[in-house]
Amino acid sequence: MSAQFERVAIIGVGLIGGSFALALKAAGACGSIVGVGRNPDNLARARALGVIDAEASDPAQAAQGADLVLLAAPVAQTPDILAALAPRLAPGVLLTDAGSTKRDAAAAARRALGARAAQFVPGHPIAGAEASGVVAARADLFRGKRVILTPFEENAAESVARVEAAWKACGAQVSRLTPEVHDAVFAAVSHLPHLLAYALVHAFAGREDRDQLFDNAGAGFRDFTRIASSHPEMWRDICMANRDLLQAECLRYEDALGALRKMLERGDGAALEQAFTVARDARIAWLRRANKGAAKPR
Amino acid sequence: MSAQFERVAIIGVGLIGGSFALALKAAGACGSIVGVGRNPDNLARARALGVIDAEASDPAQAAQGADLVLLAAPVAQTPDILAALAPRLAPGVLLTDAGSTKRDAAAAARRALGARAAQFVPGHPIAGAEASGVVAARADLFRGKRVILTPFEENAAESVARVEAAWKACGAQVSRLTPEVHDAVFAAVSHLPHLLAYALVHAFAGREDRDQLFDNAGAGFRDFTRIASSHPEMWRDICMANRDLLQAECLRYEDALGALRKMLERGDGAALEQAFTVARDARIAWLRRANKGAAKPR
Repeated sequence: MSAQFERVAIIGVGLIGGSFALALKAAGACGSIVGVGRNPDNLARARALGVIDAEASDPAQAAQGADLVLLAAPVAQTPDILAALAPRLAPGVLLTDAGSTKRDAAAAARRALGARAAQFVPGHPIAGAEASGVVAARADLFRGKRVILTPFEENAAESVARVEAAWKACGAQVSRLTPEVHDAVFAAVSHLPHLLAYALVHAFAGREDRDQLFDNAGAGFRDFTRIASSHPEMWRDICMANRDLLQAECLRYEDALGALRKMLERGDGAALEQAFTVARDARIAWLRRANKGAAKPR
Repeated sequence: MSAQFERVAIIGVGLIGGSFALALKAAGACGSIVGVGRNPDNLARARALGVIDAEASDPAQAAQGADLVLLAAPVAQTPDILAALAPRLAPGVLLTDAGSTKRDAAAAARRALGARAAQFVPGHPIAGAEASGVVAARADLFRGKRVILTPFEENAAESVARVEAAWKACGAQVSRLTPEVHDAVFAAVSHLPHLLAYALVHAFAGREDRDQLFDNAGAGFRDFTRIASSHPEMWRDICMANRDLLQAECLRYEDALGALRKMLERGDGAALEQAFTVARDARIAWLRRANKGAAKPR
């Protein structure tokens, strides 16, 4: 099944929005693409790179005549973007988003669109990168990656299928969760690791011995902290949108870490080795399973 | 300056010991290499792979006629290995190690060797990988990587220079620290991140919703937890050998993480974004500096 869209509007032409545009074009799944964004230089670059065909001055203008609109700005902007779209939103326009939190997207859509929230099929492509901006966009960013849709009950089956088809045209594997389950799972597997990595680098940066620390940091530190190079505003928004569940995961993690620290304190090497073994085995089993499926984390 | 060794003994022919052997051979810096290890299958593989030329039954036998002995077993074995070497250690044999903790290596050498500790020049190659065993060994593992030597005052300058030359023959950049500074720095930049990554995966593995968590984990989680696939026994030993400093770093980190959690709690998005920005900028500056030097973490 191939998605066919005459005109696609991208609100926020960064890594995700730009890659969605390039992937749809590469798949021959869309006619023209119009982009909107806060940064005129970035938009001009997007046009120069052939990521978008035209620029619009605001979301409502971009959505005129579009059959699909992707919201790909930092998630705190979703309410304003939906409010800007609402007054002139034609019935045939399908909306979706690429935000990393889904309870807030659902709530914003109901508030801004009321019964027309049925036109909005929220989604979350699992394909971040620490790079950001349209210059990092790639047609294959979503190839083999997962996209999770968290549809409303009111969404017509056909609307959900069309959004699913668009992501499949980008090469993604599409699955579904409720917004609540989505946000709980991603608080643990994504938002928490980002917070943990940011916390470590932030703490190092504030130390007097920071130069000596960074001078001696190696490949383990580099990979562990890769996500601490992620876009600060985007991650502020994600953490704030999901802060109740993220706080809970953070407390849970502090307990887990405290348990390992107490093993150190009492000199219990056997317990440490056991915990490390459980962790290593679980991770290796995960990679093995994941590499069998089409959605590859590695 | 090229190191020339007639016979090199490797105690513990795993990733590090095996790569040292391959690198010395590739550089033409040694004659023959004899290996010792606890696992006969691994030793047989090492010989089949051409990593070692001969097997010895114990460290003392391996050291007979060797001019350089590398200890590359998990660090908790260092005292026993040195004790096994001590009775028949000829004056001309130079000893070094590849352990990730250096205060314990120095203490073990003084205990086992007394005045002959001057023959031992402790070292630490910063070139771990989550892979382990001789099958993962590569001649270029140390190329462009750092090796830190933590010499004794009693070491003859010529002994330190010879060990340095061996690592340089492997392509490494060699620098020096005291054992105390070394262990404090690596508690922060290496041992703590390992503990943090192990703690996260261990906690997930014990949860009822573990399948759902792992199913939704992506590339960020993969890189953040890469070091949680490291060798459990090796990391047990490192954590135990450095447990006072690691505990202190762990408490320090818990404070840093708690500060971010409190920003979430009070809904202080501006403070979060500021912390994330400081972290991202520090990390980017680090990578830029590191990529200018010869010792590349990336």
